[in-house]
Amino acid sequence: MAVNGVNGVNGTRSKHDASALKVNQSRLMDAIHSGCKYGAAHRYGDHPTETGMARLSLNDADKQIREWFISTAQSLNCKTSIDQMGNLFAIRPGKNAEAPPIMMGSHLDTQPTGGRYDGILGVNAGLEVLKVLHENNVETEGSIGVVNWTNEEGARFPMMAVASGVWAEAIPLETAWNLEEVSPGEDGHRRTMKQELERIGYLGSQPASYRTTPIACHFELHIEQGPSLETERRKVGVVKGVQAFKWFEITVRGRDTHAGTTPFYARMDSMLCAAKLIVEANAIAKKFGGLATTGILNGQPGSINTMAHTVTFSLDIRHVEDDKLAEIEQACREGFMRISEKESEKGCKVEWKELVNSPAVKFHPDCIAAVEASTKEVCQDLPVTAEDGEMWRYMISGAGHDSCYTNRRCPTSMIFTPTKDGISHNPQEYCSPEDCAIGAQVLLGAVLRYDKLRAERGDFS
Amino acid sequence: MAVNGVNGVNGTRSKHDASALKVNQSRLMDAIHSGCKYGAAHRYGDHPTETGMARLSLNDADKQIREWFISTAQSLNCKTSIDQMGNLFAIRPGKNAEAPPIMMGSHLDTQPTGGRYDGILGVNAGLEVLKVLHENNVETEGSIGVVNWTNEEGARFPMMAVASGVWAEAIPLETAWNLEEVSPGEDGHRRTMKQELERIGYLGSQPASYRTTPIACHFELHIEQGPSLETERRKVGVVKGVQAFKWFEITVRGRDTHAGTTPFYARMDSMLCAAKLIVEANAIAKKFGGLATTGILNGQPGSINTMAHTVTFSLDIRHVEDDKLAEIEQACREGFMRISEKESEKGCKVEWKELVNSPAVKFHPDCIAAVEASTKEVCQDLPVTAEDGEMWRYMISGAGHDSCYTNRRCPTSMIFTPTKDGISHNPQEYCSPEDCAIGAQVLLGAVLRYDKLRAERGDFS
Repeated sequence: MAVNGVNGVNGTRSKHDASALKVNQSRLMDAIHSGCKYGAAHRYGDHPTETGMARLSLNDADKQIREWFISTAQSLNCKTSIDQMGNLFAIRPGKNAEAPPIMMGSHLDTQPTGGRYDGILGVNAGLEVLKVLHENNVETEGSIGVVNWTNEEGARFPMMAVASGVWAEAIPLETAWNLEEVSPGEDGHRRTMKQELERIGYLGSQPASYRTTPIACHFELHIEQGPSLETERRKVGVVKGVQAFKWFEITVRGRDTHAGTTPFYARMDSMLCAAKLIVEANAIAKKFGGLATTGILNGQPGSINTMAHTVTFSLDIRHVEDDKLAEIEQACREGFMRISEKESEKGCKVEWKELVNSPAVKFHPDCIAAVEASTKEVCQDLPVTAEDGEMWRYMISGAGHDSCYTNRRCPTSMIFTPTKDGISHNPQEYCSPEDCAIGAQVLLGAVLRYDKLRAERGDFS
Repeated sequence: MAVNGVNGVNGTRSKHDASALKVNQSRLMDAIHSGCKYGAAHRYGDHPTETGMARLSLNDADKQIREWFISTAQSLNCKTSIDQMGNLFAIRPGKNAEAPPIMMGSHLDTQPTGGRYDGILGVNAGLEVLKVLHENNVETEGSIGVVNWTNEEGARFPMMAVASGVWAEAIPLETAWNLEEVSPGEDGHRRTMKQELERIGYLGSQPASYRTTPIACHFELHIEQGPSLETERRKVGVVKGVQAFKWFEITVRGRDTHAGTTPFYARMDSMLCAAKLIVEANAIAKKFGGLATTGILNGQPGSINTMAHTVTFSLDIRHVEDDKLAEIEQACREGFMRISEKESEKGCKVEWKELVNSPAVKFHPDCIAAVEASTKEVCQDLPVTAEDGEMWRYMISGAGHDSCYTNRRCPTSMIFTPTKDGISHNPQEYCSPEDCAIGAQVLLGAVLRYDKLRAERGDFS
């Protein structure tokens, strides 16, 4: 790198070098909020930025933010490309432009009632890092880029991080392309991912694979989405891994009989049974120190005075340890069987369908070390607010991210920033401008450290 | 009446008279099943009649069965009329044609997964009675007719028996007209009752009111929809009233936060809270000897890894006594508050909206007497199957019916027939041809007895 020398990843970079390049906080925040005009929704206050977001993957607003992303990247002399999953790659060539780039990745899609930071901060911080390199005419050893992964949320097409999953060859392309949106459009029809990629013009020709689009390593800045950093008054989470989680669709089958004329003894009430199962899953998750959540429930036929013959509901279970997650699942399977057969009037049938199985993830030590060194440097200049004096901590992510899939194919780690009240997937999700900039500064330092590491260990020779 | 004399309502009609007029079982069943081609759905067996029905009120199939009803009635020389709620009246003039008619009423709409008997049997039995009178050239004292009440099920437009309710002036016309269908159409829009009445051509000009369309009395033949008659091996229920019921829409408000990053202590999980409330309502109803059912539940925003911020669900509670129903409601209100505030992590808010309040109904003694006398006559010719030798019993209806509203404005009672396995609001709902004909025969006898009663007491003088 041309401007200042980086001497290894473990904090040996000189104080002078560390402060040589600074992210521009107001430019970062302007970029975040000006991009949020595409898909803004759910206003909760008078200030122009006091709205949430409803930029569901591959909708019209997503098309607009993609155009914005490409034109921003091109203004920084980046090479852009689009793969078959609509993943957008923007790469700023380094001295050794033939080698795979270091990528800073996250996503620009949101939940239906999402906020302005989840995913959005990570992509914008990546672009801000490129702007800093660009305005300082920095020539890095290898190439450095930003990737916007498609449909990370899994909110519209129900498979989380599906596009980074295809890139990692963990999910077949056809499976992803054929995913149908969870709610039909205004005309009553459900679009597939492929149809919507085509419709908005982002069905690229480049294969979606780590083989054809290799990445040297992947860093992702993200809001914590939980209350820990805020509660402990720290500023940065050095993320060492991601908790294990599984998603299921549970189907409960009973019988649709009349609500007024069917005595309890004769009922097969799938809604009552489903309610008991949701309560049971919650109790089991608590007992094992994990989490259980049902966010979707549909009953058929859906009439006030008729029992539902069929109820389907989503079940999301999580634990930091794979073994414990397996125990939660097993306890739920046993509990659901007991309740549906014996504690639910005449009984119902329960079927399980596994939608996602995401084992616990351990990020790469080299990436964690680069983030940790950068974090320590950034934190030493911050006013101390934490009781124990440490302005950062190690963390395990509660949520899945694209980084879980990239970690299968290249060294990966993540950086967390505080999240107001621990609230995300909500219009009022918030991370202060100062905290966003701290996170972006850590990202910049981590990327430069890793770039130097590559040169030192001979990646380019 | 010209063919045979009816001597009072209390079984004093002679044996000869009782057997003089007979309903035609095969004609009745042909009419039922040929009409079911409009809206047949949910096939469960190979026989042509082994389907359920999905004839939701005012859909295209409902338009077709209405045309069939009118042409059938006109072939029997009946006068037909349509009121502002689309209620269809077919009246066969009697000797005193100016006096209000005796009406046999029920409904031709079904649940989305309904069967071939609920409502349909009552209207067809009424038409069969008119056919018997027509083919025997019987001149009754007063006029006798059949009414098809609109949207009895409340399955499409969510207010049960709304059109007989408007007729009884218990529900304002505008309220009924403005009801929106529970599920949007294929174009994503919800139609109102008035729009759909207009669309299918059944928005009549005649005011929907007992004042302009008076009825002398109302008899309704209906399947029991419960298991009692079948279990006790009896053939007829003489219905003395209807249990009280209330419908509510319950809204639970929480907060939509991330399923993986929000620890239990920080959650306001409206789906978990709703599940606990449904379980609680069930326990309370059991304790008080009543019923509680949730047939509809919707969660928003509806994402696997995001808690629902809002869940709405229907609550249908019933008891044969008004006082006990009030106790169930009160216990649910207290229990829901306790659970939502204290037993649901960080707490949720619960709102109640009353949709229907249907107090316990006591039918008119004159109508009950006419049905009872007719029942006794019909039953004396049946082979005995019940253990105690009685082939009929008094009953309280578990379900609401149009008869609840007609009973407010004219003497009313109902006749029940056995229902296989007690199942209704289900495609496999079934009442045997023999049992359908027994019910229709009881209806014929009850109508003729009441006609004679009117003449005897001077209604026409």
